[in-house]
Amino acid sequence: MKRTLIIETIRKVGQAVTVKGWVNARRDMGKIVFVDLRDRSGLAQIVLVPSELDARSDELLDGLRPEFVLEIKGIVNERGEKQRNPNLATGNIEILAKEIKILARAETLPYELDSELNIEAYLDNLPFNLRAEKQRAIFKVQAALIEGFRKILLKKNFVEFACPKIVAGATEGGANVFKIDYFGHQAYLAQSPQFYKQIMVGVYERVFSIGNVYRAEEHDTSRHINEYTSLDFEMGFIKDHREVMKMVDAVARAMMLEVEKKCGAELKLLQATLPAMPKKLPTLKLRQAQKILEEQFGEKDCSKEPDLEPHQERLIGEYAKRQFNSDFIFITHYPVEKRPMYTFEDPKDKGFTRSFDLLFRGAEIVTGGQRIHEYEKLKSNMIKFGLNPDNFQFYLQAFKYGMPPEGGIGMGLERVTWQLLGLDNIKRATLFPRDKSRIDEPLNKQDERDKR
Amino acid sequence: MKRTLIIETIRKVGQAVTVKGWVNARRDMGKIVFVDLRDRSGLAQIVLVPSELDARSDELLDGLRPEFVLEIKGIVNERGEKQRNPNLATGNIEILAKEIKILARAETLPYELDSELNIEAYLDNLPFNLRAEKQRAIFKVQAALIEGFRKILLKKNFVEFACPKIVAGATEGGANVFKIDYFGHQAYLAQSPQFYKQIMVGVYERVFSIGNVYRAEEHDTSRHINEYTSLDFEMGFIKDHREVMKMVDAVARAMMLEVEKKCGAELKLLQATLPAMPKKLPTLKLRQAQKILEEQFGEKDCSKEPDLEPHQERLIGEYAKRQFNSDFIFITHYPVEKRPMYTFEDPKDKGFTRSFDLLFRGAEIVTGGQRIHEYEKLKSNMIKFGLNPDNFQFYLQAFKYGMPPEGGIGMGLERVTWQLLGLDNIKRATLFPRDKSRIDEPLNKQDERDKR
Repeated sequence: MKRTLIIETIRKVGQAVTVKGWVNARRDMGKIVFVDLRDRSGLAQIVLVPSELDARSDELLDGLRPEFVLEIKGIVNERGEKQRNPNLATGNIEILAKEIKILARAETLPYELDSELNIEAYLDNLPFNLRAEKQRAIFKVQAALIEGFRKILLKKNFVEFACPKIVAGATEGGANVFKIDYFGHQAYLAQSPQFYKQIMVGVYERVFSIGNVYRAEEHDTSRHINEYTSLDFEMGFIKDHREVMKMVDAVARAMMLEVEKKCGAELKLLQATLPAMPKKLPTLKLRQAQKILEEQFGEKDCSKEPDLEPHQERLIGEYAKRQFNSDFIFITHYPVEKRPMYTFEDPKDKGFTRSFDLLFRGAEIVTGGQRIHEYEKLKSNMIKFGLNPDNFQFYLQAFKYGMPPEGGIGMGLERVTWQLLGLDNIKRATLFPRDKSRIDEPLNKQDERDKR
Repeated sequence: MKRTLIIETIRKVGQAVTVKGWVNARRDMGKIVFVDLRDRSGLAQIVLVPSELDARSDELLDGLRPEFVLEIKGIVNERGEKQRNPNLATGNIEILAKEIKILARAETLPYELDSELNIEAYLDNLPFNLRAEKQRAIFKVQAALIEGFRKILLKKNFVEFACPKIVAGATEGGANVFKIDYFGHQAYLAQSPQFYKQIMVGVYERVFSIGNVYRAEEHDTSRHINEYTSLDFEMGFIKDHREVMKMVDAVARAMMLEVEKKCGAELKLLQATLPAMPKKLPTLKLRQAQKILEEQFGEKDCSKEPDLEPHQERLIGEYAKRQFNSDFIFITHYPVEKRPMYTFEDPKDKGFTRSFDLLFRGAEIVTGGQRIHEYEKLKSNMIKFGLNPDNFQFYLQAFKYGMPPEGGIGMGLERVTWQLLGLDNIKRATLFPRDKSRIDEPLNKQDERDKR
């Protein structure tokens, strides 16, 4: 008999069905056993009464434990009024089992699924813990965010491209890069698709890419991960950075809309709310934001600082909420020396760039801006930043042969997920997080094994 | 004035428009200059007559060269009947320029765009060469292939996930891995998302992921690249590998359908045709294929070989075309020792696995199969393959706590593109190919620079 997904059983009262899934929980009530069976669509209560089961199934009954994978043939029955469970999508029905088949056994669990765990304990048993309702909800939301990003950009004529992650040089001349032994040569893991997406503007005008990026940050905090997913787009023929910001606005809205459409139940479970987004997202210049911090939040004078501190971003997030009823706010015009060498200086505001960050609930989730598109200007800016244009010949080709005014952004998928869902640690918004001391397992555990 | 995309000008005859794009070509006819302007939507002929231009624009006229980026205000005129160009979407119109603005200059080109180049010359000037009509078509098709893959899987309830590429061990115990210095520990670049997608079956039953994978292959041939894009899916609650093959069938069809819908012009330009796909893709067991090779193609006895040679795959491709009018054919039942340790042995065909490759026009584009889902069986198989289960504790957790029968595949995006378009070298189907001697630029060039 064809498998019925659990959520579909609610429309099959009185009918025989075959359901398949994991034992989420088992409750014994005398001779009757209740099992919550979990599949990708939801949970249903299975009633196992020895007298209703065939002889072979009856024998299996005692051994059934959580996470056993079962195939169950049974009848969908309406529950009595007092037995209904309004918190469950299938709370009005239960399935009276006639036949059980064990598709896979499970060892005794280390603890109940859905237990509250500190981050290390959570990561130690990640393949198991990811099955918990909360975790499944988090990464469903994440999948919807990816889909929302992609949908709107395809609609707006962006072309997706596959970006390499092995690079010959450190993209932005910087530290914090992982080194690779590439056939005896030194290579690196890309910190961003920056150069490639700019090159691709010369090809398709509008491009996007979704992929892994790397930061060899020594910090191991609730805000850091060493490998993350970057959502990038880049667009040509812009007037200035504001056209990029307008696109970011549309993209952020589309991402949230996708979550709203697909993940209502998940948001409820995670007690998360969709962000407040006024018709146009508010924006402040860095220097304005710093003045507000001083005047309204009693921060000491920071008007010479090139960036906001994390706690200042949080305060500006509060300000945006209070002042504009917005969970998002753009900060623009970071100083030239704080941004990468390809950043476009604002001719009307010398010393400051046509760059921006987007804060979401007080944390930066997007960095972007207009880029320098003129070949000679870009070369001379490299020199100004202490870089040798000879090392960037490949990248520079795109500008040597005519590049329109252009700009773009990178968005950290895990950061958006983290902020949207209000999680305590970004590692809980990262499916398989890598940090300084862990790749799946703690690295010292692996080192010890290697020694043996 | 708002920008009009070039393709939209055909519906604006008699109207004033602003178009923006690159000078694709320039032709001087006495005092009149014709420029083919290129934007992301197409090409249009711009007519530059000194008497029609304002004074400032007239001055710029002499200097205009290919790849200059222009903004042109002008009037869309219908061409005279003899001037029409049936090979161009905008062949019935031309734009009489009134005002030119140079958005960016370009250096003199190394050679004409769209020149025929050998692979090294092509790669040396890649950022420039990608702008050629043919290259733009190739990677448009590639974007459609990605989109088709994703669309069908989302429709079939698969959940997309972000897969890490830094791994602690070599996934399949093998050679050909790139090493990373990970904070003083040894780590590797993933050869496939295999373990993670299997773990994710325990979470969502059906998952897919699109991402970069790595092979440190020493070979540098027209068939090898060292970093490529892997399209992966994995699904639980299958009966056997044939259910996975059925999904592959649906996915391949959806990918080709997306290309058909989006890339008609590109296929025509590349002189590529969509593949022949009978209602159900044909399938042969490896041993059957080997018998056919011997009997119908005069190959010497290969019935003991664990795999097909590349030239044998091509012959089987011919056979599939002739016998089944199919550009695709599955080969199943590779011997146990040829496939990874997690491959499911066929109980009805001992020594052979429930695994398959999918050949597309005589080249393997997909590898997949049913996996071992039982914890004890998987552990003992590791030992049989000379591996220590202790080194796979993280992966094994997914099986320890109940894994349904499952299977899946990996598909090489660049290989599909290569075969679909009949390109001579897979590097022409790879946006920024990495090979043994090149990361963007030749590695020896970079090494010399580092020495200085």
